[in-house]
Amino acid sequence: MARNRAIVCFGELLLRLNAPGRERLLQSQRLDVHVGGAEANVAVSLAQFGHEARFASVVADNALGEAALGELRRYGVDVSPVARASGRMGLYFMASGATRRPSEIIYDRAGSVFAEAGEETLDWPAILDGAGWLHVSGVTPAVGPKPAAAALKAVRTAKECGVKVSFDGNYRAQLWAAWGGDGPAILRRILACADLAFINERDVGLVLGRDFPRDEAGRRAAFAAAFEAFPGLELIAATRRRQHSVDHHALTAVLATRDGGERRSREWDLSGVVDRIGAGDAFAAGTLRGLIAGHDHRHTVEFAAAAAALKHSMPGDFNIATVADVERALAEDDLDVRR
Amino acid sequence: MARNRAIVCFGELLLRLNAPGRERLLQSQRLDVHVGGAEANVAVSLAQFGHEARFASVVADNALGEAALGELRRYGVDVSPVARASGRMGLYFMASGATRRPSEIIYDRAGSVFAEAGEETLDWPAILDGAGWLHVSGVTPAVGPKPAAAALKAVRTAKECGVKVSFDGNYRAQLWAAWGGDGPAILRRILACADLAFINERDVGLVLGRDFPRDEAGRRAAFAAAFEAFPGLELIAATRRRQHSVDHHALTAVLATRDGGERRSREWDLSGVVDRIGAGDAFAAGTLRGLIAGHDHRHTVEFAAAAAALKHSMPGDFNIATVADVERALAEDDLDVRR
Amino acid sequence: MARNRAIVCFGELLLRLNAPGRERLLQSQRLDVHVGGAEANVAVSLAQFGHEARFASVVADNALGEAALGELRRYGVDVSPVARASGRMGLYFMASGATRRPSEIIYDRAGSVFAEAGEETLDWPAILDGAGWLHVSGVTPAVGPKPAAAALKAVRTAKECGVKVSFDGNYRAQLWAAWGGDGPAILRRILACADLAFINERDVGLVLGRDFPRDEAGRRAAFAAAFEAFPGLELIAATRRRQHSVDHHALTAVLATRDGGERRSREWDLSGVVDRIGAGDAFAAGTLRGLIAGHDHRHTVEFAAAAAALKHSMPGDFNIATVADVERALAEDDLDVRR
Amino acid sequence: MARNRAIVCFGELLLRLNAPGRERLLQSQRLDVHVGGAEANVAVSLAQFGHEARFASVVADNALGEAALGELRRYGVDVSPVARASGRMGLYFMASGATRRPSEIIYDRAGSVFAEAGEETLDWPAILDGAGWLHVSGVTPAVGPKPAAAALKAVRTAKECGVKVSFDGNYRAQLWAAWGGDGPAILRRILACADLAFINERDVGLVLGRDFPRDEAGRRAAFAAAFEAFPGLELIAATRRRQHSVDHHALTAVLATRDGGERRSREWDLSGVVDRIGAGDAFAAGTLRGLIAGHDHRHTVEFAAAAAALKHSMPGDFNIATVADVERALAEDDLDVRR
Amino acid sequence: MARNRAIVCFGELLLRLNAPGRERLLQSQRLDVHVGGAEANVAVSLAQFGHEARFASVVADNALGEAALGELRRYGVDVSPVARASGRMGLYFMASGATRRPSEIIYDRAGSVFAEAGEETLDWPAILDGAGWLHVSGVTPAVGPKPAAAALKAVRTAKECGVKVSFDGNYRAQLWAAWGGDGPAILRRILACADLAFINERDVGLVLGRDFPRDEAGRRAAFAAAFEAFPGLELIAATRRRQHSVDHHALTAVLATRDGGERRSREWDLSGVVDRIGAGDAFAAGTLRGLIAGHDHRHTVEFAAAAAALKHSMPGDFNIATVADVERALAEDDLDVRR
Amino acid sequence: MARNRAIVCFGELLLRLNAPGRERLLQSQRLDVHVGGAEANVAVSLAQFGHEARFASVVADNALGEAALGELRRYGVDVSPVARASGRMGLYFMASGATRRPSEIIYDRAGSVFAEAGEETLDWPAILDGAGWLHVSGVTPAVGPKPAAAALKAVRTAKECGVKVSFDGNYRAQLWAAWGGDGPAILRRILACADLAFINERDVGLVLGRDFPRDEAGRRAAFAAAFEAFPGLELIAATRRRQHSVDHHALTAVLATRDGGERRSREWDLSGVVDRIGAGDAFAAGTLRGLIAGHDHRHTVEFAAAAAALKHSMPGDFNIATVADVERALAEDDLDVRR
Repeated sequence: MARNRAIVCFGELLLRLNAPGRERLLQSQRLDVHVGGAEANVAVSLAQFGHEARFASVVADNALGEAALGELRRYGVDVSPVARASGRMGLYFMASGATRRPSEIIYDRAGSVFAEAGEETLDWPAILDGAGWLHVSGVTPAVGPKPAAAALKAVRTAKECGVKVSFDGNYRAQLWAAWGGDGPAILRRILACADLAFINERDVGLVLGRDFPRDEAGRRAAFAAAFEAFPGLELIAATRRRQHSVDHHALTAVLATRDGGERRSREWDLSGVVDRIGAGDAFAAGTLRGLIAGHDHRHTVEFAAAAAALKHSMPGDFNIATVADVERALAEDDLDVRR
Repeated sequence: MARNRAIVCFGELLLRLNAPGRERLLQSQRLDVHVGGAEANVAVSLAQFGHEARFASVVADNALGEAALGELRRYGVDVSPVARASGRMGLYFMASGATRRPSEIIYDRAGSVFAEAGEETLDWPAILDGAGWLHVSGVTPAVGPKPAAAALKAVRTAKECGVKVSFDGNYRAQLWAAWGGDGPAILRRILACADLAFINERDVGLVLGRDFPRDEAGRRAAFAAAFEAFPGLELIAATRRRQHSVDHHALTAVLATRDGGERRSREWDLSGVVDRIGAGDAFAAGTLRGLIAGHDHRHTVEFAAAAAALKHSMPGDFNIATVADVERALAEDDLDVRR
Repeated sequence: MARNRAIVCFGELLLRLNAPGRERLLQSQRLDVHVGGAEANVAVSLAQFGHEARFASVVADNALGEAALGELRRYGVDVSPVARASGRMGLYFMASGATRRPSEIIYDRAGSVFAEAGEETLDWPAILDGAGWLHVSGVTPAVGPKPAAAALKAVRTAKECGVKVSFDGNYRAQLWAAWGGDGPAILRRILACADLAFINERDVGLVLGRDFPRDEAGRRAAFAAAFEAFPGLELIAATRRRQHSVDHHALTAVLATRDGGERRSREWDLSGVVDRIGAGDAFAAGTLRGLIAGHDHRHTVEFAAAAAALKHSMPGDFNIATVADVERALAEDDLDVRR
Repeated sequence: MARNRAIVCFGELLLRLNAPGRERLLQSQRLDVHVGGAEANVAVSLAQFGHEARFASVVADNALGEAALGELRRYGVDVSPVARASGRMGLYFMASGATRRPSEIIYDRAGSVFAEAGEETLDWPAILDGAGWLHVSGVTPAVGPKPAAAALKAVRTAKECGVKVSFDGNYRAQLWAAWGGDGPAILRRILACADLAFINERDVGLVLGRDFPRDEAGRRAAFAAAFEAFPGLELIAATRRRQHSVDHHALTAVLATRDGGERRSREWDLSGVVDRIGAGDAFAAGTLRGLIAGHDHRHTVEFAAAAAALKHSMPGDFNIATVADVERALAEDDLDVRR
Repeated sequence: MARNRAIVCFGELLLRLNAPGRERLLQSQRLDVHVGGAEANVAVSLAQFGHEARFASVVADNALGEAALGELRRYGVDVSPVARASGRMGLYFMASGATRRPSEIIYDRAGSVFAEAGEETLDWPAILDGAGWLHVSGVTPAVGPKPAAAALKAVRTAKECGVKVSFDGNYRAQLWAAWGGDGPAILRRILACADLAFINERDVGLVLGRDFPRDEAGRRAAFAAAFEAFPGLELIAATRRRQHSVDHHALTAVLATRDGGERRSREWDLSGVVDRIGAGDAFAAGTLRGLIAGHDHRHTVEFAAAAAALKHSMPGDFNIATVADVERALAEDDLDVRR
Repeated sequence: MARNRAIVCFGELLLRLNAPGRERLLQSQRLDVHVGGAEANVAVSLAQFGHEARFASVVADNALGEAALGELRRYGVDVSPVARASGRMGLYFMASGATRRPSEIIYDRAGSVFAEAGEETLDWPAILDGAGWLHVSGVTPAVGPKPAAAALKAVRTAKECGVKVSFDGNYRAQLWAAWGGDGPAILRRILACADLAFINERDVGLVLGRDFPRDEAGRRAAFAAAFEAFPGLELIAATRRRQHSVDHHALTAVLATRDGGERRSREWDLSGVVDRIGAGDAFAAGTLRGLIAGHDHRHTVEFAAAAAALKHSMPGDFNIATVADVERALAEDDLDVRR
């Protein structure tokens, strides 16, 4: 695996406008602002882990775009590959749920500069120069035809340049429907370039046009089908979440290899969840970190699951945990105040 | 039942001044303000459910009274029947509890314009014109002799006009004692006009001067006694709450008919409770909504209990859940983030 | 003039997302939310003055649209003519300036449900039924071809129904350019229907394709030209603002009649300006209130200018001053604390 | 003069609930809480100046009363003479003004435990034991017949015990009218016991039933009349305020002796006023501090005026300036940041 | 035991700067400020219980020192024994944890005025005059050689004056290491003067240079060893905490006598923990309150454990519970809202 | 001049803990956090102007140090030359003044990791590699003997490497006194290396041991003396500030050359000052930007003065104005809202 080389993350950068505390949207007249986006979250987490993370995107050439980039820089991400364009930032509004009321998100990302940027906007050979990995999620091509073309261009350039490709499923039927894109076809082309995929039985089913049961057997069958369909794929990782209530979850993870081998993490009991957004991205970053650091799969899946678990304790989209934070959580010897 | 006709709610509108987060009162120098009051809460919930809710009351003719009305208007309640008078608004101060420290309320409602308003202040035939229901709680007559007279006038006018009467027990010994009112006698007169009552074995015992055990058998006996004492009463509804801790409750509900029939809701496990104030009012609104919509009793009690359960997730007195919110909670298929 | 009859305001309802205090945008991670929009501001102010104000618009059928409407209801505006549609709300981000740094606004309103709503969305004869005035600003047609068509339909329907038309210039070159609309031509058609116009020498110049000096003589010449070009126009009103610094302004107003008569208000010295957004709308509402109440022009222009002046003391877009507030400001006897 | 001996302040302790920033009341859903009351403000300022200040009052025996007392203790006031009683605290709601919109106060103090406390509640000989001064304002007797009786009892006991009496006019017609008290008669009886009075031509006119012009000549005539009417009165002090705008004032003060001598302070130009409430109380405390410290009248009036001026820079009712703060303001050598 | 006599608490007063809510440190640009310190917390709790609590310390002679003292005065602590010195206040920064992320503290107390104050700074005979108890924790001598000398001087003066000594272990290896102090030796000298000690098997092991198992048997053996090593010691008290998650704990307490007798409290199940800092100090205060009030050991340990349990529901270091609050928690009849 | 080459800024990075709004320190229980320090402020401003700014310093290896660096990264500063060390961050507490109450700062920077870092900590040849300028202020050597040695090493290495040196006087007698450093001698050695100095007659007088009048003539004499004493010095720049009140200042600037030439900026009238901290640093950055961009001196001094003026409108230490912002302020055509 490519050690100590940059990871390039490509995707849209979003502003999240969140009702304070457990209020419903605009119940009071304030919004808390976070910056996020599936691939940006991965970049931040990897930078916090001490890796060189580059973020490639297109943002608005105004105070909002600059502020969003500023948040990435703050957490150590190299944003030099980001282009600016005249237009609007993608937004999402969120009300954090409680008890039996789920969190709610209203997306407002149509017509963003990212969605409108042509595939020529980013110079992929330059961006990928010296990189070890390219990470992209299924949200990026779903945003529109131009991002879809750009995502394909990115993963294909990566393959040509010997940069490994990490892909996070994140199938969003709603986004695909909005512009009539053929999601499964496009995702198949991306997966054909991927070395590592974060997908579960639902994602595989959608991409391959099959239906797998939503259980352990279904997941295994889906993984096998994916390895068969995509011969370049070396690893598949996935988390499974059960929700006892809106703020009490259980989380476990699995890392599977082409040869049928699987490593499962411990199950994390997560009560008093603060913010679950970005947990999947934290898991992806944790997995990539394990691979880059050359850890064995057992440690990699445990580290990645612990990273995802920790994310639930932090407000915002970013998992701003260090390697030391994650390893202390894994050690689990003491939950008392650290002085 | 009267479909699609207005529900009139009559009671005092209060300002709630709440310590932020889980602080004790004035631990820091800020208070969060909510608007509430048992009947106002019912009106807001019904308006959110899409019904025509009218609120009848008397508020101070100053910026506080206008702001309180503004909150009702904001949530779609028709406040045209509200009178203004010179004087003070009723207030209550609250510190939300946690862990093993219960929430605490300090009432400051003595001498309010509502308590001092003569029974002639509101023109009941006009207010009830075209209405299907009048809803009033036991708090209203307890506030003082004038509101007691007004409440009696309201329910009697309703009976004369063919408007059904909904009554929520809410026996407040402290308020009755403050002015020496004969609570049981007055409540009996109101219950004699009621078609629907939200009462439990404690309420029935107080009103009928009997003592029922605080258990399931006691409740059944109390319901039977109430149906016997008040021949016009068609339905009795009640919730039962168990508190594992200050922020972990279990809630269930029952809806009983004169013929001895009962429908019980599922039990809701409510951990991470945000704000339990107004849950009873949310239940009353949910029940009325079921009756107005012509649902069967099984659905009505499930809907009402789910409405009450959802209220625990929202700060403030109001249950600002829509019918869709409640039905999604009933469907209970997924507690994960809604996108 | 049409006394005591409803005023219909037609325009887009926007969410304003404001950096707290005097911070730049996203300097910290919070935004204060206000609701605004030129015509909505007029509606709120008129409702606060005790008039029946109806608001006609199209909002998103989600929590943001409902919350924005809730703010109008809160201040007493009748929002029953508002349609809902699937899509996004128009937004604007704002940083309030200070000292020598002007306030900055980033509009994010492209593609809003209002901009996309077809002219058939609103039923103008029903909306205008019983109304005395229709008020619309130059922002509405500038938003896009559909709102432009709707605005024309609205003013023409008003003329047909005998409803007077009030028009507020507000020429926004940037918006017109965005969709290539012929602003001057469309505004001429609207002005041809107007009884009252809030325009200055810049607006008249743009509409008539002439260039008037930006001084008192230029303004008089522009007014004369406007009266000549639009024979139905009875009154023109305008404010003039000088800014000593970002938070110290001087404001004066003029009201001119077709016969060349003019009434000028006193000059208001406004130091410590809190929020200048919506001052022009407050002026429009104040003028309409004077006309509706049948005041003479001298009082009307003084009242309107005082309303605009008061607006500078209130955060948000709305002038939530009552008639009594404005008259006390006019009386100007005492600026000390009112107890 | 009585050096280094305690000053007893007697009056109602109020909670002030203030709209944040420059918002109108309940424009948003938060209130900032301050503790105040004319005599409490004097006690806090004197304690900050290093004097022994005792506060005598009656507060509610609940969390609100305790919190209010806690604020006095925090600033070093001895609250041991305060009695508790069951009931409500006096409140006032306030919206801070701006530009041309004056600040507004809504009092909500009727029926407070202070207003209802019998004159026997406080043991005056014990409270005044060892004290050098008793300070009371005209608000205290205006609150109701019981406080009026208590105030008279307090000043008379002071006279008997050789404790000097300081009286601050503060005529509140509205409060007197509310219970039909004969304000002038009662204030005359209090002034007959006073050694020092903070009164102006309006106060003197009301008390003596005469009408003095509101100018410098009127003030001088009023002072002469007061010295004549109250032979025990040794000193009269007053401030004069001019308001250029809501947040730009000019303040000057005068200290007059029975022999016709007068000392005037410099005029303070106060722009960017933060909070003007309590400035008069800061002036009273500054004057008392000068007398207790044995300063000459010229220094006393300058110090007191500077104290009042400084108060305008601090949010809340209390002047939490030290002697060093006031003397630095008097020295006026540098307004730049103090490091 | 010494009833109704003052308890003197001696230690450093710290400012705690806390990230808001569950944020990590400086994730946003705000800090919430609390005042704390082991002995100050005990003093505040005892004052809230109605006892006379004196606090002896050294604080910075600036606005921060005064503000910290103000918080103690606010809660009724007598701070007259506190000396001022030029220099800095001790600080600690804290991020409250959640789910599986423990709370984190960064101490910044080196070089504080407390650490630098010579042992002659405080006049112990005067401070202890009339006191019944002196309470000091193991943090105080650990801060530096001068506080260590002062702590020894304090406890020895107490012994000479017949004032009982209460000692709370709180072994902080990091602080001792910072200045190379011989912690065990110094703590032995303090324990030799103690009548009451709050220590567990870890503390005893460190002080006596032995190793006790971290279980019930180890604790018993440690207590026996402590009673043997320190013949003046009459009572040992300790809490035991299990943490199911960062915000779900179980707490129990034990009070042991020299004769081998032990009283154990019930176990408290504490879910939804708000703030666990200061729970040990709340326990110490509860124990002292029981001893001073002359309660039997069974009641004392139950009261103290309940006090510690309640502390978990309150933000900040202080347990601002009254005796009534604790007794209601013990009665445990109802966790519902108290009206 | 060195165009388009990096500017290295060397100094301490501080956390500023500010009372909210215009409160005094800890009047309420919150602090707003900003990051600052004279040289860091210059680096941020230059990065906002689009230049490559490097920051060299030593920060604590904890969450506070990382967060402070994060703020610099956020605004585009290259912090790769920053070393980490175990210990504390320098802090300062601030209360923003108002009206006649000056702002107050309490420094708490003694014993910081920056003050304790040996001169070998930073590898100057590597840090200065490729740089055009080194900027350092007089605060850095004043912090202690180690920073003084480091500052000398830095400027001497710069001279050797052909990197121009910019020095900002900022004489802080208090800091020099704290460790007994010979400020004038050390500053002379630094000035001997400087190409550009931000000094006024007070600084020159202190450094040269002479006394210049604090007026225009004195300033000219001081500049001449400085040019004579330091033959390498090419340019001297200074601002002059007059304060009408705490929040109303007038600011002007001068840029002088060795040949006696002077360019003066316009005078800026700054009312409604938000935050004056960092204005001098904004001026230094503006001057450096002019020199780097190759502007003439007239434009350079106007730009720099405008940058300093703009800073007064922004909360915090940083001038986050872009070149476009400054040029718009210079154009001064319109202070109204920018849309």
